[in-house]
Order: sequence, then C-alpha cells, then structure tokens
Amino acid sequence: MEKRARVLIDCHDAKGLVYKVSKVFYDRDLNIDSNREFVDKEKEKFFMRTVVSGDFDTDELNDALKTVCPDDARIRVIIPKNKKIVILATKESHALGDILIRNEAGELNAEIGCVIANHETLRTLVERFNIPFISISADGLTRDEHEVKVMQEIQKYTFDYMVLAKYMRILTPTFVKAYSGKIINIHHSFLPAFIGANPYKQAYERGVKIIGATAHFVTDDLDEGPIIAQNVIPVNHRLSWKEMQSAGRDGEKVVLSRALALVLHDRVFVHDNKTVIF
Amino acid sequence: MEKRARVLIDCHDAKGLVYKVSKVFYDRDLNIDSNREFVDKEKEKFFMRTVVSGDFDTDELNDALKTVCPDDARIRVIIPKNKKIVILATKESHALGDILIRNEAGELNAEIGCVIANHETLRTLVERFNIPFISISADGLTRDEHEVKVMQEIQKYTFDYMVLAKYMRILTPTFVKAYSGKIINIHHSFLPAFIGANPYKQAYERGVKIIGATAHFVTDDLDEGPIIAQNVIPVNHRLSWKEMQSAGRDGEKVVLSRALALVLHDRVFVHDNKTVIF
Amino acid sequence: MEKRARVLIDCHDAKGLVYKVSKVFYDRDLNIDSNREFVDKEKEKFFMRTVVSGDFDTDELNDALKTVCPDDARIRVIIPKNKKIVILATKESHALGDILIRNEAGELNAEIGCVIANHETLRTLVERFNIPFISISADGLTRDEHEVKVMQEIQKYTFDYMVLAKYMRILTPTFVKAYSGKIINIHHSFLPAFIGANPYKQAYERGVKIIGATAHFVTDDLDEGPIIAQNVIPVNHRLSWKEMQSAGRDGEKVVLSRALALVLHDRVFVHDNKTVIF
Amino acid sequence: MEKRARVLIDCHDAKGLVYKVSKVFYDRDLNIDSNREFVDKEKEKFFMRTVVSGDFDTDELNDALKTVCPDDARIRVIIPKNKKIVILATKESHALGDILIRNEAGELNAEIGCVIANHETLRTLVERFNIPFISISADGLTRDEHEVKVMQEIQKYTFDYMVLAKYMRILTPTFVKAYSGKIINIHHSFLPAFIGANPYKQAYERGVKIIGATAHFVTDDLDEGPIIAQNVIPVNHRLSWKEMQSAGRDGEKVVLSRALALVLHDRVFVHDNKTVIF
Repeated sequence: MEKRARVLIDCHDAKGLVYKVSKVFYDRDLNIDSNREFVDKEKEKFFMRTVVSGDFDTDELNDALKTVCPDDARIRVIIPKNKKIVILATKESHALGDILIRNEAGELNAEIGCVIANHETLRTLVERFNIPFISISADGLTRDEHEVKVMQEIQKYTFDYMVLAKYMRILTPTFVKAYSGKIINIHHSFLPAFIGANPYKQAYERGVKIIGATAHFVTDDLDEGPIIAQNVIPVNHRLSWKEMQSAGRDGEKVVLSRALALVLHDRVFVHDNKTVIF
Repeated sequence: MEKRARVLIDCHDAKGLVYKVSKVFYDRDLNIDSNREFVDKEKEKFFMRTVVSGDFDTDELNDALKTVCPDDARIRVIIPKNKKIVILATKESHALGDILIRNEAGELNAEIGCVIANHETLRTLVERFNIPFISISADGLTRDEHEVKVMQEIQKYTFDYMVLAKYMRILTPTFVKAYSGKIINIHHSFLPAFIGANPYKQAYERGVKIIGATAHFVTDDLDEGPIIAQNVIPVNHRLSWKEMQSAGRDGEKVVLSRALALVLHDRVFVHDNKTVIF
Repeated sequence: MEKRARVLIDCHDAKGLVYKVSKVFYDRDLNIDSNREFVDKEKEKFFMRTVVSGDFDTDELNDALKTVCPDDARIRVIIPKNKKIVILATKESHALGDILIRNEAGELNAEIGCVIANHETLRTLVERFNIPFISISADGLTRDEHEVKVMQEIQKYTFDYMVLAKYMRILTPTFVKAYSGKIINIHHSFLPAFIGANPYKQAYERGVKIIGATAHFVTDDLDEGPIIAQNVIPVNHRLSWKEMQSAGRDGEKVVLSRALALVLHDRVFVHDNKTVIF
Repeated sequence: MEKRARVLIDCHDAKGLVYKVSKVFYDRDLNIDSNREFVDKEKEKFFMRTVVSGDFDTDELNDALKTVCPDDARIRVIIPKNKKIVILATKESHALGDILIRNEAGELNAEIGCVIANHETLRTLVERFNIPFISISADGLTRDEHEVKVMQEIQKYTFDYMVLAKYMRILTPTFVKAYSGKIINIHHSFLPAFIGANPYKQAYERGVKIIGATAHFVTDDLDEGPIIAQNVIPVNHRLSWKEMQSAGRDGEKVVLSRALALVLHDRVFVHDNKTVIF
C-alpha cells in the first residue's frame, strides 16, 4: 500500500552514505520526493532528510537503514501526521492568537492539548476556540512550587512539543530537563543581543536601528538554546520602547509560527547548540 | 480642559505655512506633541500632521487654521477615538483572524461593525468573537446583483473604512465610487508586479526570488490605487505556487495590519495616486 | 592525484537517479563534499549539483555518468577555475566599480577581458585597474550598426559570460542570440514590476514603498529572462525619483555581484524561463 | 544672493520652539525646503533640522536663532559643501573600495585627505586613485607607540570625520578622545550582539540565522558608541564562518556608505549614546 515517510538520519560523516542510503530506497522501489543532505565539516557530522513514498514497512526500512549507517546514527522514519502540542502563555495574545487562528484554519499541522497560563487574561480568547485553558497563578508561590503545579497539569497531556507563546517566566533547570528538546520559545530580541529581561527596553536604550525576534529550543542556559528562526524589523529614534514592543509583536508571532512549521514538519535537526534546517 | 487632537492639513505649498500654522498653536498655548511636514516639490503640495494637546475648542481651532492656510487647504482637527470599520472576506482566515485577535486585545483602535463574506467558511471563526457575520453567496447572481445585496447590508452600518481582508471578488466602479477613499485592500503581490488574478501563480511562473504583499486604497482601476504599505518574503525554486501562497500569507496579514494602523491613526494622506505617510 | 570537480546534471526525472549517480561516485572512491538535488514535479525535471573530490579522470567520470542517466541528461564535470568575462557599461560606475574592487581583491573568481562602453565616462576608472577599456559611441549609428561594432570588439575575446553592468542600451535579438545563455543583466527594478525604461521614475510615479533590483539572464524578450537574484530597498514619499535612483544603486551592485558569484561557481541551472540555484 | 543652509538645532524642549524658529525664517523671507523635528519626551530634548534657502547672512541668522532658543541650544547654520575625511584601514578592500568608487563618481560629498593603514596590502588600490596612502606597521610597537605614529600623520590633515573602513585595531581612550565625535566605525555584527573580536566566528558558533553590520560613532567603550545605521543578511547552517564573513562584506560596505552619507549631509544628531537621524 502506497504511503509516505520522512526519513531523518544524522551520524558522523562517512564515505558513501548518500549512495548507501539511496540504495536502501532504490532496492525497495521507493520514490524520493525530496532529499537534502548536509555535512558539517568542522564536526564531521552528516545530516540527511529524505521524503520517500511507495510500499514499505516502517520497521523494516528503519532496520535496513541501520545496517548501512554508522553505529552512532540516529535514524527516524516518520509517517507524517499531526503532532501534539501544549502551549504556555502569560498575558499577551498575539503569538497565541496566531497559533489559534492557524489551528482553526487547519494549517497548524498540530493538535493543541491545552493552554496553560500564569494569569487569567487569555481565558476568554482560548475558550472561544474550545481549547482547555488552565490558569495557575504564581501569587504567593516560589518558582519551584509554581512549576510543580504547572507540571502536574502538563503531565495530563501527551505532547511532542511545548510552545512558550510569550510565557514570561524563567524556567528552572528541573523543568527544562523534564521536557528536554521539546520546548520551543520565542525571545523578543535578535539573540544573542539583549538576553534577559525586557529586551525592547534594552534595545531602546542602546539606540538600535533594527529590532528582532528569535525562536529557539530551550536549554538550561536562558536564551542560549539552538536557534530555529529569526527575523528583524527596522526601527528609529521616534519609537518609544513601548512602541518598539508593539512593533516587535508582528515579528514575534511570524517567527514563532515559522519555527513551529519547521519543527512540526520534522525539518529541524539539533546538534551541539545549533540547528540544521532543511 | 486638557485634550488632544491630530491636526491634518494639506494644501498647495506657500511660504510661511509652518510659521503660520505653528503660530495658531502657539497663540492658543497648545503643546506640540509631534509634528511632521512634507512638501511635494513636483506638485507644489504641502502636507502637515501635528498632534497638539491643551485646552482648545475644535471648531475655533479649525477656523483659525482656515484663516492662515491657502483657500484650497483641507484641514482636519481630529479628536482621537476608535474608528468604525466593516470587513469583507471570502474563505481565507489569516488576515481576518489577525484583525480579530488585535481587536480582542484592544489593540485595533477600531470597532468592527460586521464581517460580510461571499461564503459561509468563516462564520464559525467570526461568531466565536461575537461579531455579526453575514454571508451573501454570489451563486446564480450577476456581479451587479451580488453587489447590490452586499451594499444593502453594508448600509446598515456607519463606518469610516471598509477593509477587504482577502475579499476575492472584483468590485465594480459603482461599488468603489459609493465608498470612495474608504476601501482598503490587501493585494497578494508586490504591486505593480502581478496585477490581477492569482499573483502567486504568476510569480511562480515568472520564477521570481522574492514575493510581496501590498495594502492599498481601492480606486476604479483594479490594483492601481494609492499604496499604503508593502512588504516582501524571499522564495526560491523549491516552492510550488501553493507553497508561495502559503508563505505569502504572513506577509499579507502583517502588511494589512500595518496599513490599517497607519490609516486608523490618521497618518495617511492621499494625493493623486500616492500616499504621504507620517 | 587528488582533485575536485563540480558535477552538474539535469535531465527528466526518473526513479533511482540519486542512487545511480552516487554509485558512480562511490565506485570511484570519490568524496562528496556537498550535494544538492531538486525535482521540479510540474515539469518532471531533475537537477543535481555535487562537488566531489578524489582521484578521477574527467572524461571517464563524464562517460560513466552518461551511462546511468537518461538520454536527455545534460552532464557537466567542471574543474573549478576562474571563468572569463567581458563587461558592457555606459556611464554609471557603481556596478562596474564593485566588480573591479572585487577583482582587485582576488574575490571575483573571474578574469575580466575588457570593458566596452558606449561612452567615454568610465575610461579613467577602468584604466586605473589596467583593464582594457573600449568605447564605441552610438552617435550617428543605427542600433544594428552600433551592435556590429560592439560585436567586432567582443569577438576578440573568449569569455564565458558577458556582464551588463548598467549597460543602458536595448539589445537586438541578433545580439542576444549570438551570446545565448551567456549574458547577465542587472535591471534596476523588482521585475516584473517596471519593465522597460526608467524604472525608478515609474516606481516614483506609482508611489511604491519598496524598490528593487533584479539580476537575470538576457533572452529575446527585454527584461523577461530567467531571474538569478533580486533584492529590495524600502523607500517613502520623501524621495524624488532621482533619490530613489541613487538609493537603488546599492541594491543593484549587491544583487549583480551576488548573481555573478552564483553563476561563476556553477550554482545556477536554467530551465524554461527559470533558474534553479544551489 | 540666493543661497541654502542646513540649520540644526538641539536643546531642551520648550513650548513654541517650532513657532519661534519658523518665525525667524519667515521674518527673513526664507524658503523652507525641508523641515523635520523630534522631541525626545523621556529626556525632554528637542531636535530640528531645516533646510532653508533665500538671501541671508549666516552669522545674523545664527544670532537670531540664538535669541529665540533656550540657552543650552546648540545651533548650527551649515552651508553645504564637501566635508573632509581621512580613512583608516587594514587589509580588506571592500569598504574602502566602495568609498573610493563613490568618490571617483563624485557621489561621496567628501574629500579624502589620505588613507592610513597598518599594512601595505591596500597601497596599490589606493594609489590607483591618486590618494595618499600611508602605511604604519605596528610590528614591534606597543599600542600606544603605534597610535602616536598614526596621530602624527593624521594631524597633517584637517578633517571633519575619520572613517574606520575595517581598521582592525583597538583604539585607546587617548586616541578616541583626541577625535571625539569624529570617528565613524563599521562593526561587522548586528550590535550589541557579538561585541569584540571576530564577530562572524561568534555568530557561526552561536548558530544565528541572520548576521548584521553596524556603523557607529566611536566612544571610549569599544563597540558601544551611538549607532548610525544597521543592516542584516540571512544566513544558514551551510555557511562556514569564513563564508559568513564573505557574505557579510556586502552588508558592511553598504551600511558604512549609508552612515557616511547621513553624517556628511548633517542628518545625524548625537545625544547621550543615541542618534536622531532626519
């Protein structure tokens, strides 16, 4: 029966990999719908993403690829389907709203399990779309106590990715570790400029002529994780930092949606602290 | 009593206009919060937008400005408040959805009277936000007949601007004339490239490396009205025209929102077939 | 003896091409330094550019690839070396100057045979760099007569590409045909907007908010050839068309240099009226 | 006799400044060719740049303006003419070459006194344009000793601005102080990201998706001076840091030229650590 898979391989570089992998596809009479490779010469790492179609058994294909690839190879044969996500937010609606609208249009390629926020502000918006909204106030709680409560809610859901749609709280290493490689954040600056709190104010005070937004995976070091996508917006002396913040929102939501689309289509490899994106 | 006004003046250029107008403000002890002028040397036209605050009478201020400006001057003293808009759409939700989210966040600076569409597709989305949705099918109707029905609905609303949020029908001169200077459209190309139907397909076939979007006022000549804002998105040979269309949507919604913000803040002058934007 | 080649293949699409081609490389123990493919699904065409290194015989490799590719395959095994170019110009120095500076820095990857112009203006600049400058005035000549004189000079040089660095004359079909696929032009607009004469004036009169530049191969239809690279520059109502022209020059020279680099590194396939760029 | 002046005023904000200043122009029957103001509300500072034409005496005009402006006002009545510049460089020719080409075309609006470099590399290029080239090797010298030698050469020239066209040496506070407010640098990153040495390598290692360039005035804190202009170039995982460096050069030269044009046309005010640009 005709089906389609995304095959992702990353391993240390070796001679003949393209040949050997494409032979596996050829021997099974599979069509290559698209194919991209990259070799990081410095790290001697090989990355390949191929979309194949034809009549194949997923496990058999996986095993066959394992045979021809180096031992350290990470091989994924992924049958495309909607991934599951949960969303964390605070008060701002632009990034979250953009995701909700895309979801409504059937363009998100994901199922939203729930939206968790540390304020009530966004309840009306989320519930308009019949998506569970859970608010967990941080009032009177330590950071750890609040996170425990958030994690208790999150673990009711299975999900592939957690999206921080302007979630304005710092995460502890415990939290990050619990969802390692699954958390996607939007930072409202052109990283690594203006790490930390209130980047628009920092940008305003530095007098920059361009502001930016960065979508990245979250790792232990705040705002230091692998970058997925960035964009920029020109500004000038006439904008107050509040106006920069407002102007920046369009950039934030667009870059988050772009990053999400890349991740949800399995187009993003992470290695060391970088991404390879096909 | 302290209040604020946007003062917009356009007229033929003459010596001393800045002096004379600023004297009117000075004599009334008004603060100038911001001020911008422009002289179109070729057409010998003067444009000025000043935000003043203080204690003034709107009519008296208007009259005083009339005294010092040339006879052909168009003078507007506008007390900032939310403008009223109606929205026309078809099936796509990205531009409309972006407006709804901004409206929900209180950032639109407008009140949405209703959304009128020639299909039912967007009803659920619009009604989620408790905004009247009116669908008027064009099935079996001539263009004129359909427009008459649309106009019958529209005239139930008072509005400052009509926003075409991907309304995929051509308007007749009668319709355009009825709402002259009030209709804002988003055209899904970098005008004047790819005027007319299916610009993404045209762009794909031409093999361009950048696609764009244009927000403009609608005049009789299709896609030929004064341009308010434009933006662009890089593309390459790997994108099908459907993928270009999808990639272009972010550009469309962002440019429409930007144009709307400019218009709703009274920052846009139209002269001949161009805009002056402060 | 270790050497390196760029292998370019384009042909109709067929199953197993990646496998068969990579097998040819594998059987000869060649390293793949980089590899990119693309399938145009609509036209059913396959494109592949691979950089291989190792010990090989160019002709033998070419023959081996011919054996495994479809009959219509165009196969090129190119040993990297500086290409030869001639430049046509008129009066403006920005695009030409940029090429001369790159050449002086050893970054052009080309040898400039000569600069031919229809005015004397640029002689001093070109001769500063010890490059032959030939001016052929068009005064009193028909278009055909002038072109004959230009072609007489050009044919003294062997060259891979002819670069029109703001050559402000329309070429006849005879001329274009004589150097088919070799002529690279910079058009000072975001094609297909503002085809023809004085695009900055056209852009000014249309009141656009962004202007552009386009580098493309020249074909019979003026400004209609395959696009290699494009870029854009934001403008506003304050710029006269002369100021747009001046602002546009940076875009022109950058886009021409980018296009030249792509072409000179054999990264550009032309098919139908489009480019595939790796 | 008809002449033209750029009038620049900056002072603390006060009511009626536009009126009072424009009255001075009106009373002298001067035309306002263009006029821009800005009030920094946070710092309560007023900035105004007006181009006037007519029959006036520069000193009388200056005095009259002084009468109507606050005591702290900095007033400049500038008759447009070419400014004088000196250029410092090291080995790279792209930014320097761009300036030389513009100068040759009469588009620089400046006179180049000399080019001083700490290497011999650029001598041929500079001397092609008949501009004095002075190389001062830093070999065997302390930073201070080298700077003393550079300053000895520089002081032979009168100049309005010193342009660091990729001068790859750190300046001491003594040097910066000696030419306070006159030194324009191009930093090869999107400041404040990647301050310090080898920003392309830093950018590569951080895995950014956009690189940038920044033109700024030099102050004591390295790379911390007021920003004049910035731009960006998209990059991806396929570029090595050397390739990023190469790709970045176009951005560097364009942003330096843009900044230079702004400064040489007296369009840039510096206040605190920021610029106001008209």
